Amino acid sequence: NKDYIKTEFLRWLIMGMIGVLTGLVACLIDVCVIQTTQLKFGYIKDYITSCLENFCLEVPLLIWICCNAFLILIGSFLTAKFAPVASGSGIPQIKCFLNGVKVPHVVRLKTIVIKIVGVICAVSGGLIVGKEGPMIHSGAVIAAGISQGKSSTFLFDFKIFEMFRSDHEKRDFVSGGAAAGVSAAFGAPVGGVLFSLEEGASFWNQALTWRIFFASMLSTFTLNVVQSFVKGHPLDLSSPGLFNFGKFETTTYGGLEIPIFILMGIVGGLLGALFNHINCKLTIFRRKYITKVYLQVLEAVIVALCTGTAFYVCLYFDNDCQVMESSESQENGIQFFCDDGKFSSMASVMFRSPEESVKSLFHDLPETYQPTTLILYCTMCFFLALWTYGLFVPSGLFIPSLLIGAGWGRLVAILLHYISPTAKWVTFEKYALLGAAAQLGGIVRMTISLTVIIMEASGNITFGLPVMIVLMVAKWVGDIFNEGIYDMHIHMQGVPLVGWEPSSMLSTKRASEVMSHPVTVFRTKETVGRIIDVLKSETHNGFPVVDDYDPFVEQSFQDEAESFGRYKGLILRSQLIVLLKMKAFEEHEDVQDVKSVLNIKDFRDAYPRFIPIHQINISPHEREFTIDLQPYMNPGAYTVSHNSSFPRIFRLFRALGLRHLVVVNENNKVIGMVTRKDLARYRISSHFGNVQIDELYISQS
Amino acid sequence: NKDYIKTEFLRWLIMGMIGVLTGLVACLIDVCVIQTTQLKFGYIKDYITSCLENFCLEVPLLIWICCNAFLILIGSFLTAKFAPVASGSGIPQIKCFLNGVKVPHVVRLKTIVIKIVGVICAVSGGLIVGKEGPMIHSGAVIAAGISQGKSSTFLFDFKIFEMFRSDHEKRDFVSGGAAAGVSAAFGAPVGGVLFSLEEGASFWNQALTWRIFFASMLSTFTLNVVQSFVKGHPLDLSSPGLFNFGKFETTTYGGLEIPIFILMGIVGGLLGALFNHINCKLTIFRRKYITKVYLQVLEAVIVALCTGTAFYVCLYFDNDCQVMESSESQENGIQFFCDDGKFSSMASVMFRSPEESVKSLFHDLPETYQPTTLILYCTMCFFLALWTYGLFVPSGLFIPSLLIGAGWGRLVAILLHYISPTAKWVTFEKYALLGAAAQLGGIVRMTISLTVIIMEASGNITFGLPVMIVLMVAKWVGDIFNEGIYDMHIHMQGVPLVGWEPSSMLSTKRASEVMSHPVTVFRTKETVGRIIDVLKSETHNGFPVVDDYDPFVEQSFQDEAESFGRYKGLILRSQLIVLLKMKAFEEHEDVQDVKSVLNIKDFRDAYPRFIPIHQINISPHEREFTIDLQPYMNPGAYTVSHNSSFPRIFRLFRALGLRHLVVVNENNKVIGMVTRKDLARYRISSHFGNVQIDELYISQS
Repeated sequence: NKDYIKTEFLRWLIMGMIGVLTGLVACLIDVCVIQTTQLKFGYIKDYITSCLENFCLEVPLLIWICCNAFLILIGSFLTAKFAPVASGSGIPQIKCFLNGVKVPHVVRLKTIVIKIVGVICAVSGGLIVGKEGPMIHSGAVIAAGISQGKSSTFLFDFKIFEMFRSDHEKRDFVSGGAAAGVSAAFGAPVGGVLFSLEEGASFWNQALTWRIFFASMLSTFTLNVVQSFVKGHPLDLSSPGLFNFGKFETTTYGGLEIPIFILMGIVGGLLGALFNHINCKLTIFRRKYITKVYLQVLEAVIVALCTGTAFYVCLYFDNDCQVMESSESQENGIQFFCDDGKFSSMASVMFRSPEESVKSLFHDLPETYQPTTLILYCTMCFFLALWTYGLFVPSGLFIPSLLIGAGWGRLVAILLHYISPTAKWVTFEKYALLGAAAQLGGIVRMTISLTVIIMEASGNITFGLPVMIVLMVAKWVGDIFNEGIYDMHIHMQGVPLVGWEPSSMLSTKRASEVMSHPVTVFRTKETVGRIIDVLKSETHNGFPVVDDYDPFVEQSFQDEAESFGRYKGLILRSQLIVLLKMKAFEEHEDVQDVKSVLNIKDFRDAYPRFIPIHQINISPHEREFTIDLQPYMNPGAYTVSHNSSFPRIFRLFRALGLRHLVVVNENNKVIGMVTRKDLARYRISSHFGNVQIDELYISQS
Repeated sequence: NKDYIKTEFLRWLIMGMIGVLTGLVACLIDVCVIQTTQLKFGYIKDYITSCLENFCLEVPLLIWICCNAFLILIGSFLTAKFAPVASGSGIPQIKCFLNGVKVPHVVRLKTIVIKIVGVICAVSGGLIVGKEGPMIHSGAVIAAGISQGKSSTFLFDFKIFEMFRSDHEKRDFVSGGAAAGVSAAFGAPVGGVLFSLEEGASFWNQALTWRIFFASMLSTFTLNVVQSFVKGHPLDLSSPGLFNFGKFETTTYGGLEIPIFILMGIVGGLLGALFNHINCKLTIFRRKYITKVYLQVLEAVIVALCTGTAFYVCLYFDNDCQVMESSESQENGIQFFCDDGKFSSMASVMFRSPEESVKSLFHDLPETYQPTTLILYCTMCFFLALWTYGLFVPSGLFIPSLLIGAGWGRLVAILLHYISPTAKWVTFEKYALLGAAAQLGGIVRMTISLTVIIMEASGNITFGLPVMIVLMVAKWVGDIFNEGIYDMHIHMQGVPLVGWEPSSMLSTKRASEVMSHPVTVFRTKETVGRIIDVLKSETHNGFPVVDDYDPFVEQSFQDEAESFGRYKGLILRSQLIVLLKMKAFEEHEDVQDVKSVLNIKDFRDAYPRFIPIHQINISPHEREFTIDLQPYMNPGAYTVSHNSSFPRIFRLFRALGLRHLVVVNENNKVIGMVTRKDLARYRISSHFGNVQIDELYISQS
């Protein structure tokens, strides 16, 4: 009872620490990005102003592009060389982790350090990326780190929180960290919880969700307090997230606008599908040809150069000069080739951070951007963003999507305004927001969590229904062509991710058709030599323990119903390795008293990085000893009968987060094993209405 | 494939219909309550004004009290006589339903009709009740009704949506209905989804949650459109829910206020625990003595009379006269015993609907209520509300809790203002809101969904953290003494509700200790006579099918490891009844060709009300026939080994929503059954830190 209360208290404490630390990391990233950008921009702006008179504009722009390229060089080199897993937004990796797949290095301390440095470089280096996606990964790493109380990379172990050193507990905390990351990124605590449920959870647990919510809340609160303090009005608490959409003034919409929203959803879905398709091809190309570190860094630098050049070229071609109106735009506006008292729209979106550009697209006056500027800008962003995602730099996809979407959303508003100039319901911010939602939905295909994130980030509950409609339509339309970009990247890596529901087309399959067969089993008292041999030759992580079975005569069975002895329990590779390492052997098979039974602490200390089997030294003499597996195996591990249907097995895996399931026949004899890979092997792909079952390539690592 | 798309489409369509209809029902209730109250109030107000001069005040007040009593008489009689399950808020019943427990009559059409009429009577009859809780029940019934496309009470069957006639599908739709109900009640679509997850879901399913959200959104949207139309400004969309908390002007709080919030949470927890404790004793008393319909109606009428009288007496004792300031208060204020230009605070809370009183307590000027008025009002509401909840009228508990909490929250603000008169951070609306949250949290003990509902209803994301802290503390403090009021009512009814997590104290129990034993089994070919006899004598709903077993020699086994033949599958009582009713018999045991194999449609048509076994007529001759159970039984039903641990079994039940689980021994022979009742039998009660395991009484129906 006392232990229970202590454990509960520690769970809350750790979640609280995760929330606070994630908030602080978000602040750190934000401050660093602002400082770096201001440094760069302040220097360049004066140079440009003086050069405009002397017609030496190429010089500052060249310096600017080189600065960017240099920053990207650093970020990209660090990522490609030391932590490739830190590249991209990290959402696919976290999704895999929460789904129960072990992605190597994903929650290491080294990864987060490089992620933070890398994202600062990428954002201040002028790439079309956001710092929001990486926050989710950062939160997850923080969670894993704190909850385990040790770091293997940096070789320290606080010897605290040892009761949480198991996959299950760690995963719970990582959900909290991911939620805290979303919450810090968008000031969306509820959206964060829903994100971690939608992407990770398989089993709703009230107490856990409540703790996750706590972490989310503290994360946005910490960020808010620190940011308000940094901005000089500490009690105002007006910065709930790294990025929010600003205040929306119109909050009404009419029922007659709904068809327009649906059309926008369709456009978002189509553009999203196109984005994903091209990015998919590009990723396959990268996987094949860009495998060396220097090539990866080179590509990132080229993208940085291209991004800079593209904007530069546009500046010449698109001379969209606007009158300076408010004092705010005077501060941020850049005169460039324009007459006095005017500023160049293109230059201002070029030198602004992507977040500020999104806000400007949402809220600026209708006249700020001309249609040609918007079309040019949207197209450029679209192609640059899809080229950027997948580079070896940490980069978020939310902001680029919002940028593209807000751009064409504004175009829709201009079009509607052109068709019906007197209509009061055509407000630019509404259509820019819905365009952004449609584009984001078309690319990432998230559902409820995305709706709530957008609702919270825009501080507006009234727009809930339009946002939802747009996201729903975008998802449906996009799903006709391909899947969401995160899922696509996961599948291209051959990760056995278990989906939401068993496909109805596989409902007739039985356990005996899905299972892996034959199975390698261990006897209750197994020789050390055979354990070593099996562990070296097999890649499986779980083995059934049986009796009445002689592994050395297995070739004699050749019939269909081949079985491997009566099922007793399941033992994990990690357990066997600890047993071998601690040499929990018996010299004679008939010795009854076990000399030293290992306890749970021995297994926990080895978590999570069990040494590889070939590093264990066993003398030829010891190979003859036996290990009694019965005290260590899990006797109650779930089994299924050979004629269970596929959907039942699927639900068991999904709901309980299983990794292995032993299939037994009517006499409780082992006949096969079902692993995650067996479930993920079949994928239903629907392509223009033709549904087919593919057998996927699943990575064997 | 085409079928799949059609089914998916129908699921969305039905969810949409559920949302729209729930919104419309909410409108209906609202309009009826307003009309009835205005009718009553308008009549009385003139009377009072004229009587104030003639000193005949007793007469209109007596009329008023009689009006109330009459309304309650109608509502209570209908409820007690025709649908006792419609009484109260319905949340405990919906919680049971979603948990997988069949509560009789809970989702019938008759229930909703009486619920709607009853709640209109209860609210306009002046009881301290809300119309929000019943909306959740109404939404659930609407969902069940639409998704099944038939009503057995009113004997019609549209013959549509037949594919959704199963427990599983129906439960999914009912979750959506409950969410739509919350959404309509508080304008909280996200809160609605989280409510239905927190109270019902065991397995997070992305697609389902997305559909539930759709229903929620449509429900609040429909309500919004209709309400705006009723109020005369159709495009304004300013009424997202039946009740929202109004606009909050102060949205800041300082870190130093957090200790005050924690203290408020403690007060809320203590008051909530007291509320629940007294209500529990009262419910036990009611269960024992107030069992006749006339007594139930009488009690409700007495409560109505007492409520009226209590307010009336207060009016005399508390003469809190306030200056009329705004034009609004002139409209609603009542002069009563006050001088001209002033109005009586007590009279205004008395004649207002509870919702308006909550809003007034939140937002009215600091001077509106004096401390004595608040203390008197709070105390009165506290006792009247706890007396009212449990009466045979439909009644919600949210509004009374908010009323009590907002009252003492305002008192806290007055106190703080007294201590530090110059502090700007003491705003009445903030403390009233947090007091309301604390009180509600202390009574219902909900977590994330309640936080989000309060955030959405107050249209305010900034207060998220304080609300969360207050709810968290209130729940922790309350949980020391007893459980939430809904769970308490569920437990008092002896319903086998499966909790969230297996208790750590039961983790050493094994399947063989928890299971029911002996088990009644059927052979694969069973005689009609034995099936009839077993179904008549047993109350179980699932039976294992075995071979190698002779039921008529079971008395010969007397050893510990008694087993009942080799497990083949599981068959349900409902299936057996359909088989008996359709007379799917074989005349001789050795006839190989089955004459007529029933298909899934035969079973579906009988859903959900299978006739009782004693209504099936079987001739003595037919008793000798056999039924081949193999085509109908579920061969892949989950089984567990006899040494599986309790937590594993628990998780299997919880995550997969099982009702029966067959326990087998090492030879796959049936040795026992675990049912929900076996799991729910043990409850951990912690009372002042002493944790103990109780074996509960579980109703056998």
